[in-house]
Amino acid sequence: MTTLSDVAKEANVSKMTVSRVINHPEQVTPELRAMVEKAMESLDYHPNSIAQALVNNRSNVVKFVTLEDIDTTEPYYMNLLFGFARGLNSKQYAMQLVTDPDQIENGRADGYLITGARNKNYDMFDKLDKPFVLFGENHRGYDFVDSDNQMAEKMATQYALDRLYKHIIFIGIDIKEPFEYSREAGYINTLQQHQLVPQIYRVANHSHVAEKVVREHFKEFKKDTCFICASDRIAIGVVRALQRALQSQGARIPEDFGVIGFDGVFLDQVSNPKLTTIKQPIFEMGEMLAKMLLQKIAQSGSPQGEIMLKPKLVRRQTTR
Amino acid sequence: MTTLSDVAKEANVSKMTVSRVINHPEQVTPELRAMVEKAMESLDYHPNSIAQALVNNRSNVVKFVTLEDIDTTEPYYMNLLFGFARGLNSKQYAMQLVTDPDQIENGRADGYLITGARNKNYDMFDKLDKPFVLFGENHRGYDFVDSDNQMAEKMATQYALDRLYKHIIFIGIDIKEPFEYSREAGYINTLQQHQLVPQIYRVANHSHVAEKVVREHFKEFKKDTCFICASDRIAIGVVRALQRALQSQGARIPEDFGVIGFDGVFLDQVSNPKLTTIKQPIFEMGEMLAKMLLQKIAQSGSPQGEIMLKPKLVRRQTTR
Repeated sequence: MTTLSDVAKEANVSKMTVSRVINHPEQVTPELRAMVEKAMESLDYHPNSIAQALVNNRSNVVKFVTLEDIDTTEPYYMNLLFGFARGLNSKQYAMQLVTDPDQIENGRADGYLITGARNKNYDMFDKLDKPFVLFGENHRGYDFVDSDNQMAEKMATQYALDRLYKHIIFIGIDIKEPFEYSREAGYINTLQQHQLVPQIYRVANHSHVAEKVVREHFKEFKKDTCFICASDRIAIGVVRALQRALQSQGARIPEDFGVIGFDGVFLDQVSNPKLTTIKQPIFEMGEMLAKMLLQKIAQSGSPQGEIMLKPKLVRRQTTR
Repeated sequence: MTTLSDVAKEANVSKMTVSRVINHPEQVTPELRAMVEKAMESLDYHPNSIAQALVNNRSNVVKFVTLEDIDTTEPYYMNLLFGFARGLNSKQYAMQLVTDPDQIENGRADGYLITGARNKNYDMFDKLDKPFVLFGENHRGYDFVDSDNQMAEKMATQYALDRLYKHIIFIGIDIKEPFEYSREAGYINTLQQHQLVPQIYRVANHSHVAEKVVREHFKEFKKDTCFICASDRIAIGVVRALQRALQSQGARIPEDFGVIGFDGVFLDQVSNPKLTTIKQPIFEMGEMLAKMLLQKIAQSGSPQGEIMLKPKLVRRQTTR
């Protein structure tokens, strides 16, 4: 079995140096670290993670906390979770899934990934005793990873204009959170650039609610309208309402009405017709969150900043 | 801080006994164990999980391994995972998610939950060095938890007959695995009891494949047929094919044709019309798998047997 001494010999450094690279990589120069890691790799040396954890007073466990009342069947979270797991595996970290906020500090963990944080949760965060990062943008200075929500809806709105829809309506989520404001801002800014007047409806994030609202307001919508929706759930409801209302009029999707969703996980593809949507890089965000959290733990909680990943517009059957 | 000595005093036993209850609960009588655990609870004593893990040579980590080529957006697995997490949390266990079979034994873990096992995987299992349990029935004697697949399709077939559909056709998954055979057996046995002749089609587990097959064979299907499908994905494809074919004929779902799915996670509810389906207790199976695996680890790998949970028939819009 390869020992620490073997690695020291191979890298031509002291055992102390190897130990430091393993336990306090932030205390050594990048060159030294690269050299020792190369030696560890060539000898296939894997430090005993439990012994190492004891030395560092670490558990090698982090918690994946979902504060939102999530439907655990929501495919969105599955992608995030598998991305997060991939990021953890590279450092041999394991995770506990927590859905009850009172359980966050129960048991041992080195840090927390928190998803679905809402304004009401922030008081609790300031009392947490371990490093944490958020999934989802916030304006409180907490480290986070998210999609660039504003840019996303700029893309969607501009695309609708490029496809020559004359009226662009935003169907947002009825929630006072930064991600929603950013999405609306992307839509509003783009319309203003084209001297068009924004028109926003806000609904609960359920397809049947969106369906009902669009059905009730249907007479106000003119031909050549494209609906920019803040989620695929909402977009599905909008499509359903349009399909029913249009059947009797001979009007069609996407020729007369367009719909653009948001998220791009699963729902957009099982819907019929398939949704044109903003696809978030959710797996990548999960992986990024793991890296950010592990780095924050290694650096004893120092700030990691904000990372916004660029989403993609996926063209399918609900736009011209 | 509460110590082991405090617990010993409270329970009126030796420190050695407390230690044994914590580290080798299988070596003490249930009465003694209950007494010590009660004392631990009343004093709010939580043994240091890392120190404890070292004593036991345990990592307090298990791996959740998915061997199937899964779409990580598949909501089915999310439920299983959250149920599994709930089962682990009660014993302060964490998990690593593994999708690459070559990574199973990489790093430390006390045991494995393996999902999506196929015949080709069994050779590998015999070489695993840690206790494991399977999600999904098998006839090789490996411990598992699954739904009672045969009983499920008995229920579905009997229900279709009770709703007075005259022809019952099974659309199965084109895969040679025990769960599929069990589902087909449930269908076949029920038809035979009623002196009816089984008719089975097998397709890849994708809605568009099922849609194509039903479209191609549509002329062979008579009014008053109910399709028993081995998954909700398949059922959605069948519904889609029927909707298109029926529009031109004035025939309808569920009046002239019925469809029953299998799984009952998410897809059955976002489909339009909503599916009558067999709902598997997936969250509960996940929780059960965690308990089975942790018990197997505590008992040094001794066999745990088979657990089959009873699924439910959920009546919605695709049957009379």
